[in-house]
Amino acid sequence: MTEPVNPQSEPEPNVIHQVARYKPVRSWRTWLIGNPLRSADAEHQTVGKAVGLAVFAGDALSSVAYAPQETLVMLAAAGTAAFSYAFPIAIIVTVLLAIVTISYQQTIHAYPGGGGAYTVARDNLGDLPAQSAGASLLVDYVLLAAVAVSSAAAQIVSAYPFLIPYRVPLAIGMVLLIMLANLRGVRESGNAVAIPTYFFLAITFLAVGVGLFRYFTGTLGVVENPPLMQVGAAIQPVTWFILLRTFANGTTALTGIEAVSNGVTAFKEPRTHNAAITLIWMASILAVLYLGITFLLGVIQAVPSEDETVISELGRTVFGDRGLLYLSLIAGTTIILILATNTAYAGFPRLAAIIAQDGFLPRQLTFRGSRLVYSRGIAALGVIASLLVYFFHASVTALIPLWAIGVFLSFTLSQLGMARRWWKIGHLAPGIVIREKGSSLRYERGWQVKLLINGFGALCTAVVTVIFAVAKFRDGAWIIVLLLPALIYLFYAIHRHYLRLRHELSLDRYGRPSQARRHRVVMPISGVHRGTMIALDYASSLSADVTVVHISLDEEETKAVQEKWREWGSGVRLVVIESPYRTFIEPFLEYIDKLYSQRQPNERITIVVPQFVPERWWHNLLHTQTAFWLRFALLFKKGIAITEVPYQVD
Amino acid sequence: MTEPVNPQSEPEPNVIHQVARYKPVRSWRTWLIGNPLRSADAEHQTVGKAVGLAVFAGDALSSVAYAPQETLVMLAAAGTAAFSYAFPIAIIVTVLLAIVTISYQQTIHAYPGGGGAYTVARDNLGDLPAQSAGASLLVDYVLLAAVAVSSAAAQIVSAYPFLIPYRVPLAIGMVLLIMLANLRGVRESGNAVAIPTYFFLAITFLAVGVGLFRYFTGTLGVVENPPLMQVGAAIQPVTWFILLRTFANGTTALTGIEAVSNGVTAFKEPRTHNAAITLIWMASILAVLYLGITFLLGVIQAVPSEDETVISELGRTVFGDRGLLYLSLIAGTTIILILATNTAYAGFPRLAAIIAQDGFLPRQLTFRGSRLVYSRGIAALGVIASLLVYFFHASVTALIPLWAIGVFLSFTLSQLGMARRWWKIGHLAPGIVIREKGSSLRYERGWQVKLLINGFGALCTAVVTVIFAVAKFRDGAWIIVLLLPALIYLFYAIHRHYLRLRHELSLDRYGRPSQARRHRVVMPISGVHRGTMIALDYASSLSADVTVVHISLDEEETKAVQEKWREWGSGVRLVVIESPYRTFIEPFLEYIDKLYSQRQPNERITIVVPQFVPERWWHNLLHTQTAFWLRFALLFKKGIAITEVPYQVD
Repeated sequence: MTEPVNPQSEPEPNVIHQVARYKPVRSWRTWLIGNPLRSADAEHQTVGKAVGLAVFAGDALSSVAYAPQETLVMLAAAGTAAFSYAFPIAIIVTVLLAIVTISYQQTIHAYPGGGGAYTVARDNLGDLPAQSAGASLLVDYVLLAAVAVSSAAAQIVSAYPFLIPYRVPLAIGMVLLIMLANLRGVRESGNAVAIPTYFFLAITFLAVGVGLFRYFTGTLGVVENPPLMQVGAAIQPVTWFILLRTFANGTTALTGIEAVSNGVTAFKEPRTHNAAITLIWMASILAVLYLGITFLLGVIQAVPSEDETVISELGRTVFGDRGLLYLSLIAGTTIILILATNTAYAGFPRLAAIIAQDGFLPRQLTFRGSRLVYSRGIAALGVIASLLVYFFHASVTALIPLWAIGVFLSFTLSQLGMARRWWKIGHLAPGIVIREKGSSLRYERGWQVKLLINGFGALCTAVVTVIFAVAKFRDGAWIIVLLLPALIYLFYAIHRHYLRLRHELSLDRYGRPSQARRHRVVMPISGVHRGTMIALDYASSLSADVTVVHISLDEEETKAVQEKWREWGSGVRLVVIESPYRTFIEPFLEYIDKLYSQRQPNERITIVVPQFVPERWWHNLLHTQTAFWLRFALLFKKGIAITEVPYQVD
Repeated sequence: MTEPVNPQSEPEPNVIHQVARYKPVRSWRTWLIGNPLRSADAEHQTVGKAVGLAVFAGDALSSVAYAPQETLVMLAAAGTAAFSYAFPIAIIVTVLLAIVTISYQQTIHAYPGGGGAYTVARDNLGDLPAQSAGASLLVDYVLLAAVAVSSAAAQIVSAYPFLIPYRVPLAIGMVLLIMLANLRGVRESGNAVAIPTYFFLAITFLAVGVGLFRYFTGTLGVVENPPLMQVGAAIQPVTWFILLRTFANGTTALTGIEAVSNGVTAFKEPRTHNAAITLIWMASILAVLYLGITFLLGVIQAVPSEDETVISELGRTVFGDRGLLYLSLIAGTTIILILATNTAYAGFPRLAAIIAQDGFLPRQLTFRGSRLVYSRGIAALGVIASLLVYFFHASVTALIPLWAIGVFLSFTLSQLGMARRWWKIGHLAPGIVIREKGSSLRYERGWQVKLLINGFGALCTAVVTVIFAVAKFRDGAWIIVLLLPALIYLFYAIHRHYLRLRHELSLDRYGRPSQARRHRVVMPISGVHRGTMIALDYASSLSADVTVVHISLDEEETKAVQEKWREWGSGVRLVVIESPYRTFIEPFLEYIDKLYSQRQPNERITIVVPQFVPERWWHNLLHTQTAFWLRFALLFKKGIAITEVPYQVD
């Protein structure tokens, strides 16, 4: 209901605006996604280090569910003997993790307002790198969601093998459930996330701890009844190419490491300090778990398979049976993967909204739905991720080659942006401060070291990007190599459109458009009845120059129309167009086209369409929806106004 | 292109109409369904007896492909020993055929203009029986198409058993192909139909003849490797109920017998004479083939099966192998079934158009497409028949119970109408002539005998209708028993709507509606730019009472709009409606609702919507299609005119 103002009240001389406020009505949508929330309800909540770790670590820590497995999968091509390379490669990946972590430490301190790769690249490198980072990140979020639910489904079927045939629907079901939860607007409210995250950490550390203890006491043994390994026909020798591909898969352990630097504002003060500590904790935990799991997998001779995950093999070997501890490990792993999927749902729509705000994506993505979330972005992610899961049969191994290019490209651009920033800072005169949106620039001592650190980080991640693109090109990386430039091109096309539009519609630049002086009205009729008279009355009130057009499909009927028009038409000109091929819309459109092409300057053309409004919706099926089709056909015609004049039986 | 008239020419005082003629442009539809045809191109072709037999016999003769098989299927429940009942039952069916044929002879003579069951019932019995006949016939045509293609598919897989798994797609493919052919507008042009029909007759008579010859010379033997019979668990004794169900299935041999009486106008003069002779020929051929095949099937101990038709079993037993003659028999049978399907495509749309012309079905069904055919009716038949084939797995046995009720109900109504007609004729004073559309009534001697013949025909077919409905009720006849009254109800609902509409819109009855005196214009805006100015200019030209409405989603933006409006708004009243839940359409609609409910008598309300028209279609994706959704939401609102004023960048 609209409050205080009575819209019927006449305009008062000096009042040019009135304010009313709208309250929504409940409907089926309320039941599905909850009551609408006011814009003013958007709240801001800050967290400490312990909860912050839980909030931001889901994505990164969930890597331990698939990174060790995918490392082994690549080595499988060279036979189980090659599995011994897994641990050394994991150590190299851990070193890379350390470099990236140190590099991001600096981002956190420099961007207390939150420094995602898109922001950093935009502020320091310009539009093109920013849009490259944006496109990469959007693609990443989609793949994160697809990979995480696929891995979650794999964990579930490992514990309950009778579900193996339902892996794809299971994964898609999870994507859509999490989508629905996000459309309702799940807040990343600290405690709800902290409990499952710490549960996962506890059970995973227990598994690694017990495993190492049993290894050192010599009671660990190997996997009983390992699953069958799916490999190609012939076992190849261990080549450099295989090792590079293995390393490429291992680098997926680093995905999600940037989350903390994006979310600095969510931390309690001193926020940069808290965020930095949290990042170090997160990286350390990840390193320990990743190395520990990879080491134990080698010891127990785990076999990578689509039917049972190596986490499951590890669990039943370490804990001795498929008992409560084993199930807790699977449950914890599944939960952390679901939290990682949720991260994608939080990140994708927000980033899309930021890019849309900058005018590189459709504006609609900036509108928040009734639950204060970017509903369109959430829905888009849900649909695309579901399709990916469907077409890649929920196989993590098949999805991985598409993924890490975007991740490392955005790392590279982010670090490069930071490096550029230090360079600018190093060349500022003392005392000068440049304020930007999320940070401010002033001269700092020691900028050379910081430049070196971020520069080295950029170099390392750039090398990994190239390695990944080359090593996995044929496995699917080519899709991303083609997709990213296409996306960036699209972003720019959208941007050009908006820029041009704003320019051309500007009143300040061009002033008020010239006013039309002459008004020609055309009205199609199919018969002469009370509805026609209502529309004719309307048409005549618009202009003295009215033409009524009758498309003749049937000679008899046309004669009747002409006769009736003589009686009722008030002398208004009637044009009859014979349509020997019994089409209605086309001849009328052609007539309008001609009229338009011959119009005078400042002439305005309006088409008045009598529109029958039935009492019941199904009555529409009993009438040719000429007005509707005509409107559709004229939608893209320039300079012609269409008026639908309703008439009904009452 | 529009010919002679220049639409720009000013109205001359005494000319109230101008005529132009439209010529169509070629498009992808031209390629798919052919060049458009003019209404004047509709031609009329007449045929002699020999070709007439071919044109009208497809439906009736094709029954021999399934009627003998379905007779055996019902007996199968009582074991193969019960098959001996098939021939006696076939003789009863043949007697029924004779009765119906004699009855229809009289219809042909009485209705030289074509006497379908719908016409005869409408002219003699009134609306309700006519609509019952109409509904029955429409349902029949759909089932004819479904049964005929299902049987055709069964013939094909009998010859090529590797196609057995593809029976359903095969049948649906045929339905759709014949649909496409009919959308192009196949004429039932004599020769094209005559050749395959006579090919079918020749090969079928050959099979029956050779079969009988080998039977009498004792060389026929029985079916080798008969297919497995699909029957229930226990063999039941032969009960009256089983015999009634068998008879019911046998009566499907009569379907299509009415075709000649519908199409009397297609015959060369003396047309009633030629048509009558053709009907007798057709019935005789049908009787001989039906009895001959049923007899031979008993002799060779054929077994009904979904995997091989009895026609196929007969063919390979009579001809000794799966050679050329066998394949010709299968091909001939398949072709006659396809012709029967084509009959459905010819009959359904025409009948639907006649019923629509009488105002009991949507008017759109009377429009002929660019190829002069009733495209909508053809498409409707194709879709419904495909769905039936899909849901009944292309099984003739499953479809049959739905079929014959409608057929015999329309027979009954047709004969009853004829009987009523003779009664009327018998009571006319000599010399008095009553002219009706397709025939004329004048006193005739011997009307009592004719009344007796048609009355007896009506009685027999009525009894068969009841037997069929009861005996097959549980097998699917219940669907039709429920569907027919529902359809008739729907026809009447449609009729009432049209009648009411014509009454209420009548100028002769009510005269010109009162004219509006006051005009209130409302225009929603999202921002103030050149597009808004174009629309404001338009709105102001309609009325002095213009209100501009801005739905406020964002406080900042609203302030900017208010400020700009002060500068550019020409003092037009601006109403701001705050929408804290960020919806746009709902608050605006509520405002309009209030305005409408408070309007003065004779007040007219117009909503002017500024509509951005992009240069390229995909640019639409970059704009919220507010105008479109608004138009959709207001579609069913009474008394409010909507005007879309386009603006574009050029």
